[in-house]
Amino acid sequence: MSRPRIADPTALTATTAAEAIRDGVLSSEELVRACLARIGAREDEVQAWEHLDPDLALAQAREADAALRARPAAGALHGVPIGIKDIIDTCDLPTENGSPVFAGRRPERDATCVAALRSAGAVIMGKTVTTELALLTPARTHNPHNLAHTPGGSSAGSAAAVADGMVPAALGSQTAGSIIRPASFCGVYGFKPTLGLVPRGGVLMQSHTLDTVGVYGRSVEDLALLTDCMTAFDPDDATSIRRGRPGLLGTARARPPIPPRLAFVKPPPWVDTDPEMQTAFAALAARLGERVVEFDIPLLADVIEWQRIVQLAENAHYYGPLMDEAPQLISPGLTQRLEAGRDIDAQLYLRAITGREPAYRAITATLKTFSAILTPAALGPAPEGLGTTGSPIMNGLWTYLGMPAVSLPLLQAKGLPVGVQLVGPRHDDARLLRTARWLVTEVAD
Amino acid sequence: MSRPRIADPTALTATTAAEAIRDGVLSSEELVRACLARIGAREDEVQAWEHLDPDLALAQAREADAALRARPAAGALHGVPIGIKDIIDTCDLPTENGSPVFAGRRPERDATCVAALRSAGAVIMGKTVTTELALLTPARTHNPHNLAHTPGGSSAGSAAAVADGMVPAALGSQTAGSIIRPASFCGVYGFKPTLGLVPRGGVLMQSHTLDTVGVYGRSVEDLALLTDCMTAFDPDDATSIRRGRPGLLGTARARPPIPPRLAFVKPPPWVDTDPEMQTAFAALAARLGERVVEFDIPLLADVIEWQRIVQLAENAHYYGPLMDEAPQLISPGLTQRLEAGRDIDAQLYLRAITGREPAYRAITATLKTFSAILTPAALGPAPEGLGTTGSPIMNGLWTYLGMPAVSLPLLQAKGLPVGVQLVGPRHDDARLLRTARWLVTEVAD
Repeated sequence: MSRPRIADPTALTATTAAEAIRDGVLSSEELVRACLARIGAREDEVQAWEHLDPDLALAQAREADAALRARPAAGALHGVPIGIKDIIDTCDLPTENGSPVFAGRRPERDATCVAALRSAGAVIMGKTVTTELALLTPARTHNPHNLAHTPGGSSAGSAAAVADGMVPAALGSQTAGSIIRPASFCGVYGFKPTLGLVPRGGVLMQSHTLDTVGVYGRSVEDLALLTDCMTAFDPDDATSIRRGRPGLLGTARARPPIPPRLAFVKPPPWVDTDPEMQTAFAALAARLGERVVEFDIPLLADVIEWQRIVQLAENAHYYGPLMDEAPQLISPGLTQRLEAGRDIDAQLYLRAITGREPAYRAITATLKTFSAILTPAALGPAPEGLGTTGSPIMNGLWTYLGMPAVSLPLLQAKGLPVGVQLVGPRHDDARLLRTARWLVTEVAD
Repeated sequence: MSRPRIADPTALTATTAAEAIRDGVLSSEELVRACLARIGAREDEVQAWEHLDPDLALAQAREADAALRARPAAGALHGVPIGIKDIIDTCDLPTENGSPVFAGRRPERDATCVAALRSAGAVIMGKTVTTELALLTPARTHNPHNLAHTPGGSSAGSAAAVADGMVPAALGSQTAGSIIRPASFCGVYGFKPTLGLVPRGGVLMQSHTLDTVGVYGRSVEDLALLTDCMTAFDPDDATSIRRGRPGLLGTARARPPIPPRLAFVKPPPWVDTDPEMQTAFAALAARLGERVVEFDIPLLADVIEWQRIVQLAENAHYYGPLMDEAPQLISPGLTQRLEAGRDIDAQLYLRAITGREPAYRAITATLKTFSAILTPAALGPAPEGLGTTGSPIMNGLWTYLGMPAVSLPLLQAKGLPVGVQLVGPRHDDARLLRTARWLVTEVAD
């Protein structure tokens, strides 16, 4: 064939890979083989994958290629391999939730979001390592930028795999900071959409109030493309949004009609952030000039505390029965957490739950003239060692408020990536991604 | 004038009163004067009204009459007086929530549902007596059928006023059994719509999970007409239903396309029901023949307990701060209740909350071939004395499940009214009212 081939398919974004496959300049099999080769070369060190079946991935890729030859109609992710966090059910691979409690578990059905990816033509590449039950006990995955550092958690394998060229995009989930923090530590694009945008059916539940499915990719477009493929109303989920879902990608690619204006927010934990990162943010703000205004918003300390209370109590509700049945299979850290959750009384929980909507309204009322919040995605770069996945404290507040958040790999501190987090109002995911793309372009200029 | 006048306007349903006013055979002022006369004659005994300003009511009536003379366009409730439970805010009358804590309180704005009634042309007749904070401590209202008996609660004054000819229709609210039980005891039509159909803005909140605004009237059409005037999506209320609201009245008036089939459900507290009422229900079932099937549905004991837990915990959340500030103004019964609510731990509350949706799905799955559930509206006729408002235990389970419920004054026991409760699936309020109207017609035949 005379068409120019892609030199290194593992360097493509999901969006460009999908285009290359549609255009016939890359086959899904070539792409998946290249990803498998990269995994083969690096997995011993990075340890991003919990379940990988190369033959199954290649079979899907060949099927995608055959379908495209037979009929030139491609799904939005036709032939593109996607990594799936191992708390998200897949019908053809185990889903073990990062816990020996679920060793050998093979769900019968795909999670709703995985089925949606398959409908869009995606190749389900494999299952990525998660921390224990998507909580704080670290997993074995290493940070590809420096193997001596944590990749963050809980979506450790998904972030590391995308960062390391093993797969162009992957699914994660966030209850406090499980998508945005690993994105920051691993230097990839991460997106936690508005609560209720992506269905949660078939995803391990740790908190019905907080759990949110999201994505990793190599560009803002990737985040929009993957999310677009998965948005749907789920009548079985009370948080699912019963409203139209205009596509994100078109808006995300557009030029903002007026230059965005960002509210640089330093929530209370700012005092604990890495000084080098603070300097990097100051430089970014200086560079953006009048497009950024340092801005105080109310109630953030309360929101941080409410998120903590709600997550603790709901974790104990959903995971406590596992601990009662098999205490020896639950890590000491998680045991302590579940016991703390059981000590919470209903009044404390109710104060936290009922605080959310008034706080959201009060906070967004102060932000009317801004396009998005600009704030660090983590306290600093990835901590050294695998003994911790770092703190989610710069993320849990936005998760609690149900606001969409994106981490953009635009800064560095101590030689490691540091993410710029942008946060927008609920349901305004498309505009947030458009603002994010604008920021990426500004910084690249 | 030569048109025939109405002999006793206080005997009209709200629907026929609205028609009579539109048709010019009755003026709003005539109707309101007749109601005021009835109140004047009976209020010393019944004590249904907390705030009544005859001049204000008459001024509204005259304004309605003048508007109709000026322009023959009438709202659906044009000129019809409506009683408002005194936990529902009104801009022109006090709203004291049945508690000395709120003595002298005059809200600035109408509740959303009251504003909607005004938009439909209704005359806000006055505020009806509620029990303390719409809970179980009895109010001073008497049952019009026998003054030695309770009218039920918490919507005591609304049910009694409609029963006694003081007003054709009124608003109530239900968290356990506060609409349906008084309707049963007082022998009027009562309707608790699907949770989320009627906005709750401006209504005293005792439980965000359970509180539901509903109506009393003198016919099934009245229930449909009043509810139709108030249904709207409220973006500030997470339980409000974001979906179209096709009118109830048209469907309620229609003949069912096939004869309804009712599931006669005896929930666990059936064992405590009045034997004479049991006999009345058996006779009703016999009369309806093959249209009624005695039917067991699962999980009702659990649902009863979950409702109790959620109401206790949320009561303590919303009312606990009042008790802390002014313990001397809270009755001993309510104090005990709030203390019990504070003892509930978050895990118990979460089990109750998370049990609801699966239980609703399991229960409705068993009911697919039925038009509605037929079940008693209370444990028996109104208890003697004003020391209790009776038990809401035949209502709380349906409230918890968010299902629409109607009480129809079709039976008697011990010489007092006993309501037939019909319960339908969520969002199927119109069909439930159509089934209710069919049942009323069947029994009248």
